[in-house]
Amino acid sequence: MGEFDLIERFFKRPPRQANVGVGDDCAVWTPREGHQLALSADMLVEGRHFLSTVDPAHLGHKSLAVNLSDLAACGATPQAFLLSLSLPRVDEDWLSRFTKGLFDLADAHSCELIGGDTTQGPLNIAITVMGDVPHGQVILRRNAQVDDDVYVSGFLGDARLALEAFRGAISLPETVFSAARKRLECPEPRVALGLALRGTATAMADISDGLVGDLGHILQSSHVGAEIDVSLTSSLMATNTLWHCPEELAFNCIFSGGDDYELVFTAPPSTARQVQVAAEVTGTRVTRIGRITPHRGLILLDGNGLPNTRPLFSFDHFA
Amino acid sequence: MGEFDLIERFFKRPPRQANVGVGDDCAVWTPREGHQLALSADMLVEGRHFLSTVDPAHLGHKSLAVNLSDLAACGATPQAFLLSLSLPRVDEDWLSRFTKGLFDLADAHSCELIGGDTTQGPLNIAITVMGDVPHGQVILRRNAQVDDDVYVSGFLGDARLALEAFRGAISLPETVFSAARKRLECPEPRVALGLALRGTATAMADISDGLVGDLGHILQSSHVGAEIDVSLTSSLMATNTLWHCPEELAFNCIFSGGDDYELVFTAPPSTARQVQVAAEVTGTRVTRIGRITPHRGLILLDGNGLPNTRPLFSFDHFA
Repeated sequence: MGEFDLIERFFKRPPRQANVGVGDDCAVWTPREGHQLALSADMLVEGRHFLSTVDPAHLGHKSLAVNLSDLAACGATPQAFLLSLSLPRVDEDWLSRFTKGLFDLADAHSCELIGGDTTQGPLNIAITVMGDVPHGQVILRRNAQVDDDVYVSGFLGDARLALEAFRGAISLPETVFSAARKRLECPEPRVALGLALRGTATAMADISDGLVGDLGHILQSSHVGAEIDVSLTSSLMATNTLWHCPEELAFNCIFSGGDDYELVFTAPPSTARQVQVAAEVTGTRVTRIGRITPHRGLILLDGNGLPNTRPLFSFDHFA
Repeated sequence: MGEFDLIERFFKRPPRQANVGVGDDCAVWTPREGHQLALSADMLVEGRHFLSTVDPAHLGHKSLAVNLSDLAACGATPQAFLLSLSLPRVDEDWLSRFTKGLFDLADAHSCELIGGDTTQGPLNIAITVMGDVPHGQVILRRNAQVDDDVYVSGFLGDARLALEAFRGAISLPETVFSAARKRLECPEPRVALGLALRGTATAMADISDGLVGDLGHILQSSHVGAEIDVSLTSSLMATNTLWHCPEELAFNCIFSGGDDYELVFTAPPSTARQVQVAAEVTGTRVTRIGRITPHRGLILLDGNGLPNTRPLFSFDHFA
């Protein structure tokens, strides 16, 4: 099968929002009037972001999910994406399953594949996603205010728990591993919550590199600091309903694990009710974990308000 | 050096057109009112699209050039791009030279880097480029009309000549190899010509896979055929001023070589003067090579109007 047959068979679908979709030199697309475009690109590499044994449908899902998560973190509505795919060989079964996972998530968010590229080479998936947001309503990292509350969506740390098990560093009960693995391989981007927080959240980021690292980006961009209550640790991990995760491991997975694709955001205490409504209407759990301070830096406090002294690491692709 | 230092040091520049550039979850960008967006993505893989010995500055140039060429083929004005880069390691010298080639070309076209991703893995460069075009003026592949003239810009076949020499399939005089290699490694996207042909060209594509293949896409999309005069062969190759390329080799390099990043386009005979003006104002050579016919398929004619019978191949990434 050649490159053009491959595109025709696995990737071409009738254009919906696009003026011109897959199959010309460019896609052509008219964003909505009065809206700004939010754009993000993420690349997934075999061995670095996923294992060769991953279910191709999960990989298709995750490739788009991590990009949609960036739109969610800006409060943008997904519109369209471009996919560049490098494949070692044309494996039709793999492609069918990959595109199933990819398009199921794309359809769930009405996000249209409008173009891209396919080539032969080591397995590499690069997606650029576009969304729109009413002019001036984009939620960035740089506007957190002193005394704002700090919140996270959903659960944290489970993806990293699965990764440690895959690496052989820890051993998990089967039910725990299975639940954690689903969180690692099939993250659900918090698009609805991101939209619902427009006008409420002052700053927001998605948690891909770990809570400490990604909240750190907000603090750095906003020139503020934060105090976080680590006594909430165990309740932030979804798999902790299934077993008792050793405290040190849970602490590291939650605060510096990464691959969570949850949102961390700030909002003034006066909007606590709006945050609660946003959580309820989108069916998303939201937990207040601390507050923004004028002193730069991130301070982790135990349940008694004393600084935590345990060491933490943050995930870095070149570390 | 970590991922964020790498981005900060080599890729972050003050936003110009972008509302938010590199360094948040998304780039934010407002396209011009009344314009459509043209978007294209191309991925370059080591060993497939370039050799490990290539000058990193040339690679930076070419990575963006092949994307700008797609915008040119649609008559779109370059605006912004996102870069996803997978690197085996952080090599500062390599990155300095790569970004020099990349940004020199970006600046020449006022095309701003607004986001992307960096990760560790086999060398892979994925760019998504965006341009805009006045509403309804985009030049697609699907509107070639019977009796239109068929034109190509610039020179063809030299890039493939260099590739064959790199592969050891042929041996070239040093001056010829050097000139051909520049065409392979530093193609100049025909952005100005693409813009100048708005309102004149009926269909257009860039020549990345070879003239026969890319003109074939126009014919297929437009439901027409074409007759092409192959007697022009030798004059279409830039390096033929430096030596005498064997006829069979020249024929294959020109018609199915690929990697030219020139434009092939169609226009009614009544607009021949406008085509000439577009060529002159942009300082681009344009050659009429044939005409569109109602019979499907592509017929190559020799200087006497007789069908050519030499076999041809087209470049396919999975062939």
